[in-house]
Amino acid sequence: MKIGRQTQKSTAISTANAEAIIVRGRDLCSELIGRVGFTDHMWLLITGELPSAAQRRVLDATLIAIAEHGLVPSVQASRMTLAAAPEALQGAVAAGILGCGSVVLGSSALAGEFFAAIVTRANGGSLEAAARAEIAALRAAGKAIPGYGHPLHRGGDPRAQRLLEVSVEAGASGHHIEAAQIVERLLPETTGKTLVMNVSGAIPAVLLDVGYPVRALKGVPIVARTAGLVAHLLEEQLRPLGFVLSHAGARAIDYDGPAPAGFVPSHE
Amino acid sequence: MKIGRQTQKSTAISTANAEAIIVRGRDLCSELIGRVGFTDHMWLLITGELPSAAQRRVLDATLIAIAEHGLVPSVQASRMTLAAAPEALQGAVAAGILGCGSVVLGSSALAGEFFAAIVTRANGGSLEAAARAEIAALRAAGKAIPGYGHPLHRGGDPRAQRLLEVSVEAGASGHHIEAAQIVERLLPETTGKTLVMNVSGAIPAVLLDVGYPVRALKGVPIVARTAGLVAHLLEEQLRPLGFVLSHAGARAIDYDGPAPAGFVPSHE
Amino acid sequence: MKIGRQTQKSTAISTANAEAIIVRGRDLCSELIGRVGFTDHMWLLITGELPSAAQRRVLDATLIAIAEHGLVPSVQASRMTLAAAPEALQGAVAAGILGCGSVVLGSSALAGEFFAAIVTRANGGSLEAAARAEIAALRAAGKAIPGYGHPLHRGGDPRAQRLLEVSVEAGASGHHIEAAQIVERLLPETTGKTLVMNVSGAIPAVLLDVGYPVRALKGVPIVARTAGLVAHLLEEQLRPLGFVLSHAGARAIDYDGPAPAGFVPSHE
Amino acid sequence: MKIGRQTQKSTAISTANAEAIIVRGRDLCSELIGRVGFTDHMWLLITGELPSAAQRRVLDATLIAIAEHGLVPSVQASRMTLAAAPEALQGAVAAGILGCGSVVLGSSALAGEFFAAIVTRANGGSLEAAARAEIAALRAAGKAIPGYGHPLHRGGDPRAQRLLEVSVEAGASGHHIEAAQIVERLLPETTGKTLVMNVSGAIPAVLLDVGYPVRALKGVPIVARTAGLVAHLLEEQLRPLGFVLSHAGARAIDYDGPAPAGFVPSHE
Repeated sequence: MKIGRQTQKSTAISTANAEAIIVRGRDLCSELIGRVGFTDHMWLLITGELPSAAQRRVLDATLIAIAEHGLVPSVQASRMTLAAAPEALQGAVAAGILGCGSVVLGSSALAGEFFAAIVTRANGGSLEAAARAEIAALRAAGKAIPGYGHPLHRGGDPRAQRLLEVSVEAGASGHHIEAAQIVERLLPETTGKTLVMNVSGAIPAVLLDVGYPVRALKGVPIVARTAGLVAHLLEEQLRPLGFVLSHAGARAIDYDGPAPAGFVPSHE
Repeated sequence: MKIGRQTQKSTAISTANAEAIIVRGRDLCSELIGRVGFTDHMWLLITGELPSAAQRRVLDATLIAIAEHGLVPSVQASRMTLAAAPEALQGAVAAGILGCGSVVLGSSALAGEFFAAIVTRANGGSLEAAARAEIAALRAAGKAIPGYGHPLHRGGDPRAQRLLEVSVEAGASGHHIEAAQIVERLLPETTGKTLVMNVSGAIPAVLLDVGYPVRALKGVPIVARTAGLVAHLLEEQLRPLGFVLSHAGARAIDYDGPAPAGFVPSHE
Repeated sequence: MKIGRQTQKSTAISTANAEAIIVRGRDLCSELIGRVGFTDHMWLLITGELPSAAQRRVLDATLIAIAEHGLVPSVQASRMTLAAAPEALQGAVAAGILGCGSVVLGSSALAGEFFAAIVTRANGGSLEAAARAEIAALRAAGKAIPGYGHPLHRGGDPRAQRLLEVSVEAGASGHHIEAAQIVERLLPETTGKTLVMNVSGAIPAVLLDVGYPVRALKGVPIVARTAGLVAHLLEEQLRPLGFVLSHAGARAIDYDGPAPAGFVPSHE
Repeated sequence: MKIGRQTQKSTAISTANAEAIIVRGRDLCSELIGRVGFTDHMWLLITGELPSAAQRRVLDATLIAIAEHGLVPSVQASRMTLAAAPEALQGAVAAGILGCGSVVLGSSALAGEFFAAIVTRANGGSLEAAARAEIAALRAAGKAIPGYGHPLHRGGDPRAQRLLEVSVEAGASGHHIEAAQIVERLLPETTGKTLVMNVSGAIPAVLLDVGYPVRALKGVPIVARTAGLVAHLLEEQLRPLGFVLSHAGARAIDYDGPAPAGFVPSHE
């Protein structure tokens, strides 16, 4: 059966014949492999054009900022999965990527949509008025303001600060960063909370200012974290922690449901 | 319950406090973000050291070589998944990564283990004798020789040729590449088939020769393909093909099971 | 670091010691294995109580209704994944489940929330008035009305009709089914489209009327489809279709991006 | 491009037209929904035939035995994933299923292949001789004997004992169970360890004795655990534990890599 009414039946990313592979119009082997870096290639794949120096520098900075932050939930899920299923490293990576969601790791995408909406609404006029309106709209819908606050870096997320610096160094700071900073300033009076911009707020701000597409923002933490997961899964093969993590997790949780009289749960 | 007997309970990848994040011993914000590229960072995450110029160049080349090859099965699985579940881009990426298996895309890891086994067995002596022995061992176990042959690039995989060139240009060609070339030469007499080295053979050969860890080889196609998937999923949002693909797939397959008398399947 | 402020640290689903496993207060081995059916057990796991005969019959009917519908996108994604990665059947199942989304297969959950909102809003009063209000709210938010229409079963989804019959036979038809039927009647005048209730509308309607929890609705297509995927993956091992599907998919799509002069794509 | 040489292009599981859906030759709506139970349907999907009473009873017993065992690694991975990505319940289920691997949960499949190999090798003759030969073959290949031992149920896995009882009650005990019991008896002398049959040994033994296909064995823990995951994910929505689990896990692991002089990790 045919679901939906897609009328377009073409792709513009790549094609091939027996002799050559074309990626975004370029011959993969003669023009790209050995001639550009992977960050250039990622930008090319996503946008269709090779990046400027500023675009490359900002994308590099964001990928590095979010690639690794220790034994976060998605890394634990990934290491537990490899411990249980060592035959499929790709499954352990997939389990880790599935934790790139709206609450953790993937909130870059939500923050990016929020900043883009502010800039679009301002339409060249007051970013502050637009920011107030978009904050109000999120709050009216009962939604959180994405991109601010961090459970560990309460005084300021050092990655966010550094990303803004890199953006300035690259001469690439623009309206989306400005919008993100205005929101940070407005939070106390509009939400009653003082929260500082986190890495998931800074990533979309600096990327949108160099023209990265908003709908591909979630790809940045996903690609970056995949590299971090590969490092953890190599370590997991050499020093297995997956079941240590799950043992500690299980011990932290009690059972409070019914049980037969006299039943004593194991706390082993 | 405690599964297994893990005695080590430590990680060496990263740590943090409220002010700073340490990755492989380096301060993430002051030493890495804005100072190195993502390929350097990936090498650092995986090996604990920043790469040499040759190591970076070879890793870049392999990532670029395998990032994208059109509507391969894993890309189709990913695009169909986004069409069905647009609320979870991470799920569509995960579905694509799950296709990085022993047959397609993930065979780099098997080829790398094979080449490493040849080099280890040779132990400084004859690579050809070691290659013959390892080919014989695979064939005795009924296994395929990984890293050779391609359904489209029958006359030679241009990515493999280019990767070997880049390795030579980088002054980084060594025993693993030599082993891979010896196997290619031995295939007709040992297996009766003439097959040329493919990209999944060349990737581990050039990487092992610059000291990339064999157990992290599968991470290279996985990280690279994740970037390709992000590009496809951006395109899928703009021009949906997922259900066009599944419609074409379903039409290619007949039903040959039993059916009630007179039942006429739809071929819509 | 500690994310969020969870204060509760207990689970009520199961516990164990060396001699026994307790599930929802019952001894797994003496009270459940060999004494009840899997559908009873699923209801017990989810709700904490064994089902009545009507509850079991309705849950059975919904699971059977949605378990299998041929080479739908999620089944194709799953079979392609097994073809690429035969070493990990769990990965192929996961790829299939990831397609249980808001557009396909998982829309039961959205339809259930919609019907529950109508019944709650009516609060014993007019279901029709409540249905009109909830339809208007969805349309104001630019959202589709979930649970109606089918690309193949345009004249009526036979599974929906049968599920409503089973509900009546079980003496279990109530306000949620009534709400679903009212919506079907109101669609032409409120949306301008005549669409009949589909299986993803009927499943939540009949389940909510027997007291199944709305937040676990998505679990029904997921558990059911998992059984269908296992059948497809067994067939895939015996008669591989995964790459036939992807070959047909790729042939259905053209390349319309740039290419070097004279480049002729392969259509093999 | 066309991967591989699949010549068969048909499926025998289901087909449909606008009016009806045929599953394994039966009309889904008139013959199956409301007439059989989900366990019957699962057997039908996988084998093509409705089960006998003994087949249904044994399949029910195995599904119930393995559906739930508390906060095992795959459940923790799943709950952490939902906490991070609440927008995609299917992603959390997928993360849980990915932990159904060769070490945990999925070892039923390996044990089933092992028992089937014993029965095939015996070919009506001595099961003990065949068991000795297959044990020796596994040990020669450096592989574990699958299906024996449990980290909590050291004195005997009560689920395994109960499954064997159910098989006897159903009049369905045969050569595979016998082989599994012989292996248990031979373990001390052949491996130097006394280990009792666990649930992942008993599941394939009882299922193979009622004719369940060996290549679909992994589907049993996968389908069963999916139901358990749905229960945990409903509970996770009502009482979030995902980040409690990851917090406890992270605290159990130290950092032993390099760090700048004076750096003090947070243990928050």
